[in-house]
Amino acid sequence: MKVLVINCGSSSLKYQLIDMTTEEALAEGLVERIGIQGSILTQKVKGRDKYIVENPLKDHQDAIELVLNSLVHEKFGVIKSMDEISAVGHRVVHGGEKYSQSVLVDEEVMKNIEEFIKLAPLHNPPNIIGIKACQKLMPNTPMVCVFDTAFHQTMPEKAYVYPLSYEYYENDHIRRYGFHGTSHKYVANKVAETMKKDIKDLKIITCHLGNGVSVTAVDGGKSIDTTMGFTPLAGTIMGSRCGDIDPAIVMYLVKEKGYNIDEVNEILNKKSGILGVSGVGTDFRDIRSAMGENNKRAILATDIFGYQIKKQIGAYAAVMGGVDAIVFTAGIGEHAPEVRIRALTGLEFIGIKLDTTKNDSHEVGDGMLISAEDSGVKVYVIPTNEELMIAKETLALV
Amino acid sequence: MKVLVINCGSSSLKYQLIDMTTEEALAEGLVERIGIQGSILTQKVKGRDKYIVENPLKDHQDAIELVLNSLVHEKFGVIKSMDEISAVGHRVVHGGEKYSQSVLVDEEVMKNIEEFIKLAPLHNPPNIIGIKACQKLMPNTPMVCVFDTAFHQTMPEKAYVYPLSYEYYENDHIRRYGFHGTSHKYVANKVAETMKKDIKDLKIITCHLGNGVSVTAVDGGKSIDTTMGFTPLAGTIMGSRCGDIDPAIVMYLVKEKGYNIDEVNEILNKKSGILGVSGVGTDFRDIRSAMGENNKRAILATDIFGYQIKKQIGAYAAVMGGVDAIVFTAGIGEHAPEVRIRALTGLEFIGIKLDTTKNDSHEVGDGMLISAEDSGVKVYVIPTNEELMIAKETLALV
Repeated sequence: MKVLVINCGSSSLKYQLIDMTTEEALAEGLVERIGIQGSILTQKVKGRDKYIVENPLKDHQDAIELVLNSLVHEKFGVIKSMDEISAVGHRVVHGGEKYSQSVLVDEEVMKNIEEFIKLAPLHNPPNIIGIKACQKLMPNTPMVCVFDTAFHQTMPEKAYVYPLSYEYYENDHIRRYGFHGTSHKYVANKVAETMKKDIKDLKIITCHLGNGVSVTAVDGGKSIDTTMGFTPLAGTIMGSRCGDIDPAIVMYLVKEKGYNIDEVNEILNKKSGILGVSGVGTDFRDIRSAMGENNKRAILATDIFGYQIKKQIGAYAAVMGGVDAIVFTAGIGEHAPEVRIRALTGLEFIGIKLDTTKNDSHEVGDGMLISAEDSGVKVYVIPTNEELMIAKETLALV
Repeated sequence: MKVLVINCGSSSLKYQLIDMTTEEALAEGLVERIGIQGSILTQKVKGRDKYIVENPLKDHQDAIELVLNSLVHEKFGVIKSMDEISAVGHRVVHGGEKYSQSVLVDEEVMKNIEEFIKLAPLHNPPNIIGIKACQKLMPNTPMVCVFDTAFHQTMPEKAYVYPLSYEYYENDHIRRYGFHGTSHKYVANKVAETMKKDIKDLKIITCHLGNGVSVTAVDGGKSIDTTMGFTPLAGTIMGSRCGDIDPAIVMYLVKEKGYNIDEVNEILNKKSGILGVSGVGTDFRDIRSAMGENNKRAILATDIFGYQIKKQIGAYAAVMGGVDAIVFTAGIGEHAPEVRIRALTGLEFIGIKLDTTKNDSHEVGDGMLISAEDSGVKVYVIPTNEELMIAKETLALV
């Protein structure tokens, strides 16, 4: 069984073809600049040179056609015919309150995710375009939607209802949804597997620290709280997003600084976070270099990052009544010991003891333990694999 | 030594005359509707009937004149002459980054707190008017400013710098300031006194739960983090304020719901919080009645309240590396066992064990312990006394 995983952005498309027997990616690729001059596909296959195609692509259907051609390419492909693809798993950002599970695509599903565009105006439209393009090219292949929000639908009301007038929840669906669900679910399950325990018996805090950042409390395998909220702007400091701030600051920027709402949106999403504080950039490698040169604002950005994650670990341990394991994943989670040490130092009182040598190692293995042997709470670094998780969910439904 | 404590609002004025030998209030009073038809002063003296004066008051100077007359009133007063007042302590909301301590009023101080109007446009102006009125009427009496923000000036950068573009901190002074400082300082010191320990050796979490709500981490007697932020809108759920929410919600309310910024400000400050969620009101007694009638939204508001305080307790224990004592104060903190039990249950893993019988008792004594005898962390209910704290700070400076 081979599953194609598709993740459509507004002008880009990531894909993987996964062999479900070995759970390995046979090929993975990226199409960029769809509908823009200079469209390009890059496909990687283990042990081979990269396959690069520069070709005008007017829309996502063109892009998916090129993906399929690349997968069956006589010389650079990995399958003989499209018929080898048993199913397609699509990442869809927003499943609203409707979907707490992945779902087989049908007309009703399409209608619903179109309705959720108002909750995810930047993300759901390209996801929908991607599904439709695939349907045209592979009309007989089953498709599955895997939602970023689904895993968090188990949160209790007290965690997802905002302290606003209740009508905004009832009528406008303003609530905490949470995102990165596929990643949190994947690494939480990996932790249980690594610990050889039933996830039902574990309290896990999953820290997805990438360009976007979210931390989730996973109690007995279920998300009971997460830092991202109504949108992915909420939570702790991110690459260029501010996360939670005093909401009065938004109003101050409009009233006193004279920005309009679109400008404020741009400022909070694109010019804040570690970029805004450090003035250096969003890439943690650049922050690390600057820290090496004793750049005070780069150090401050890293301090804030670690500090805010530490507060979330404390908060989520509190709501679960303890914590058995903490896992770090995604770019910064996997590769920034500077952040992890700031997040974890001083938490001995809840049983967390870091092995600083293991933490400093930049190697990342599947299920690398970075807590000390006698640490009551196990701390892991586990590379996330959203694509594999999407493929698994897809396989389970077809 | 007698100290007069003044707390000026835009159309009201609270006062207490405190005997510093006994630390008791000789008289306390409230002037309402200053500059509005129906001005009224109510003065309470222990063991006597209330003294009520209905009298037109065109401004704060008129009000303070009436306060002084009431204090020296032949029949209802408590002192013979104004000369008995050794000093006046003024509550001032915002001291910016300038004041980490209380300060004797002089021209430079007045200039600075006038500058801070842009940070506290609703609060500093009446505070300033109150000081000026007192200066006119008591030109030879020393005056002291006690700032709501001062106690929090010990926070480290990583706690007070927001993940925004750094220029907003440098140029516009947007940062976490924190409020209720006088109350947090007072109850933290009370806890140390009650525990017969040096506050320098204690990690205390102070929960000021009134109509406004803030939680503070007090490490060794110093505030190292607090939930209120740039303004008193931030933090956890309050009577009618939303506290921290996804900042994108502010933008959504403008873009999608068509409100202007002033309307959003009104919504988030006046129509949110436990009022907004419950639809019942801001007064916790009303919420309690509604809960008795199984009103689901009143229960939800209380659940959210307790849940958010619990998260803060976890977060602040984490940043201090543990916690020795937790204290609840102000209206809801002192009188709502329903909130305290929700905030504290399940925290046995950090050594918190509530005595539910003591918690349910509505009696409030000075330093009432509500944790179990074998609780590692001591939990207290302590009535706040900002006026006494202001008087003490005033006395220390004159």
